[in-house]
Amino acid sequence: MKLIGDNELEWLSMGASVFGGGGGGDPHMGSLMAGHALDTGGEVPLVSLDSLDDEDLILPVAMVGAPTVMAEKFLSGDEGDRLKTAMEKALDRKISAVCCAELGGVNGVIPVMWATRIGLPIVDCDLMGRAFPELQMTTAAIAGVSINPVVITDERGNVVQFRTVSPKWAEKMVRTVVASMGAAASLCLYPMTVAQAKTATVVGSVSRAMEVGRLLLEASDDPIAALCDSVDGYPLIEGKLVDVERQTTEGFSRGSATIEGTGADSGRLLRLEFQNENLLAMEDGRVLASVPDIITAVDVHTARPIVTERLRYGQRVSVLALPCDPIWRSDKALEVVGPKVFSYDIDYVPVEELHG
Amino acid sequence: MKLIGDNELEWLSMGASVFGGGGGGDPHMGSLMAGHALDTGGEVPLVSLDSLDDEDLILPVAMVGAPTVMAEKFLSGDEGDRLKTAMEKALDRKISAVCCAELGGVNGVIPVMWATRIGLPIVDCDLMGRAFPELQMTTAAIAGVSINPVVITDERGNVVQFRTVSPKWAEKMVRTVVASMGAAASLCLYPMTVAQAKTATVVGSVSRAMEVGRLLLEASDDPIAALCDSVDGYPLIEGKLVDVERQTTEGFSRGSATIEGTGADSGRLLRLEFQNENLLAMEDGRVLASVPDIITAVDVHTARPIVTERLRYGQRVSVLALPCDPIWRSDKALEVVGPKVFSYDIDYVPVEELHG
Repeated sequence: MKLIGDNELEWLSMGASVFGGGGGGDPHMGSLMAGHALDTGGEVPLVSLDSLDDEDLILPVAMVGAPTVMAEKFLSGDEGDRLKTAMEKALDRKISAVCCAELGGVNGVIPVMWATRIGLPIVDCDLMGRAFPELQMTTAAIAGVSINPVVITDERGNVVQFRTVSPKWAEKMVRTVVASMGAAASLCLYPMTVAQAKTATVVGSVSRAMEVGRLLLEASDDPIAALCDSVDGYPLIEGKLVDVERQTTEGFSRGSATIEGTGADSGRLLRLEFQNENLLAMEDGRVLASVPDIITAVDVHTARPIVTERLRYGQRVSVLALPCDPIWRSDKALEVVGPKVFSYDIDYVPVEELHG
Repeated sequence: MKLIGDNELEWLSMGASVFGGGGGGDPHMGSLMAGHALDTGGEVPLVSLDSLDDEDLILPVAMVGAPTVMAEKFLSGDEGDRLKTAMEKALDRKISAVCCAELGGVNGVIPVMWATRIGLPIVDCDLMGRAFPELQMTTAAIAGVSINPVVITDERGNVVQFRTVSPKWAEKMVRTVVASMGAAASLCLYPMTVAQAKTATVVGSVSRAMEVGRLLLEASDDPIAALCDSVDGYPLIEGKLVDVERQTTEGFSRGSATIEGTGADSGRLLRLEFQNENLLAMEDGRVLASVPDIITAVDVHTARPIVTERLRYGQRVSVLALPCDPIWRSDKALEVVGPKVFSYDIDYVPVEELHG
């Protein structure tokens, strides 16, 4: 059994940002809070699905809201307790473990904080294998697992529980309550058994993120090449951020960035479109990568990921594209997370085919 | 034991509109729906608090939202079932009876619809003795009864349950979810025992509203005089509506109306301020009546109440002021429902003192 301590938390934070594709919120504050919780509560076991009983109940948890706020809002620390208590009451069943609802930014590390606090292990899986902006965009929904009940709580102690007629209704109503709570809150949703999780989650994603994060932190020579190698990634461009447009609307951070190639990429211009996460990379009207594949901008020297809300004029970046988990590539899944869902009128082509 | 059938429903609808002070939504559609439910489910027992056990649990219910929408939105009919089920699950206790959370307009009659459907009696009390626009404005809150949990549901079947740190937080969050549900929903809140209800509600308000409604419907000669007599009311002016300003903002219907006196009141001008309910009646800078006393505009010929959203230029009306339940006149209560809460910088003076 692996344990998540301070080092593993740092690796996880880094790796979750790689797979987060610019979304999920800057994990800096989240890592500090989770690290503090580990000091008090002790290391958190990271367990595999196979090590649990098929009937054990798993609770996916995350923060929800505007990434800019999520990345800065202090939690009271007992959000996980309240979420667990409310869910156990609603289901009349004990929770055996928590997992990350989203593997990206803050949401890669916050579950560690709650797990140590409530004394439960973290399961090595998540519901996205990356970050997505809306609650219905999960492998659990694709697999037919009910989103109900959804429980959200804020740092004051307010607790709201939803049973909705569809994940989209949950998204709509949760979003409005989160706004009234101050644009960020903590939630749990899609409670499921281990048996369900075996086909309704991205299995092994947490340990994979920790490996990638560790490699990135320990790479010396050419961290970008090392990173690409470890995640089957494709470097799309290396260059300088010459334009960033960003609007925070309806709780989302929407915008685009333009990267002007440097060095071997001189003369090229890449346009990056994002809605919390990076969704589309274009050059001269040609798609270089698109959602649900993962597009991550990293610092050109350190290969450390940059979340979309931290993209700034003048930054030297490399833009990488990573294949998403295969679960997202079915027709059914693309109806929920494909480019058209985000109003891009293009057909999805896997990044390996675009650059193979 | 009294029974609420078609006739009693009609009386209740009329009486609740008198005490509603222009708020609670036009009861026409609500009465039709409740009448239809009575045809199927049978008459509803109206029981006194004394006829129940002190430990029995009572569930106050109501619709919540913009009165204009509440008065027109069709319910699916099983809202009461969902509210009862969710509340019993949350409290691990059976509900013995329902009551009106608010005695005004739609909310005087909708509880009858749910009661017949779920087979529970209605208790002869409510949480306001009138209508108020916000969830914290209840006799239950003044008496220290917890608002938690609050459950709301819509006609689609979405169910949302709140445990909030204060009634004001409940008001804030419920309001946003109701907006996302389409500006009207059904709710239950302040679950309480019969023992609590004896000091935390306006006792006897439902049978009183039915008596007043019956009298009004059966009055022949001078219905306005008969009405004033039955409710200890004061006629403030008789005249013509010459101006109505109304804005629907933040789920509220806010505005004012000007009434030009006719007949014996010729030459007088009365200004009526409302936020869902009528809150203030002024003449030449002098207060004639203010919240929490009840101000109701009625048709000058029939004495039938007119809800604020139906006030129209040219209507011939009589404006009446009724003393509110004494529970609202303490300093503590006036901090929750007094004129200053609604941004009127005046001290509350009971209507009997103003016109005694």
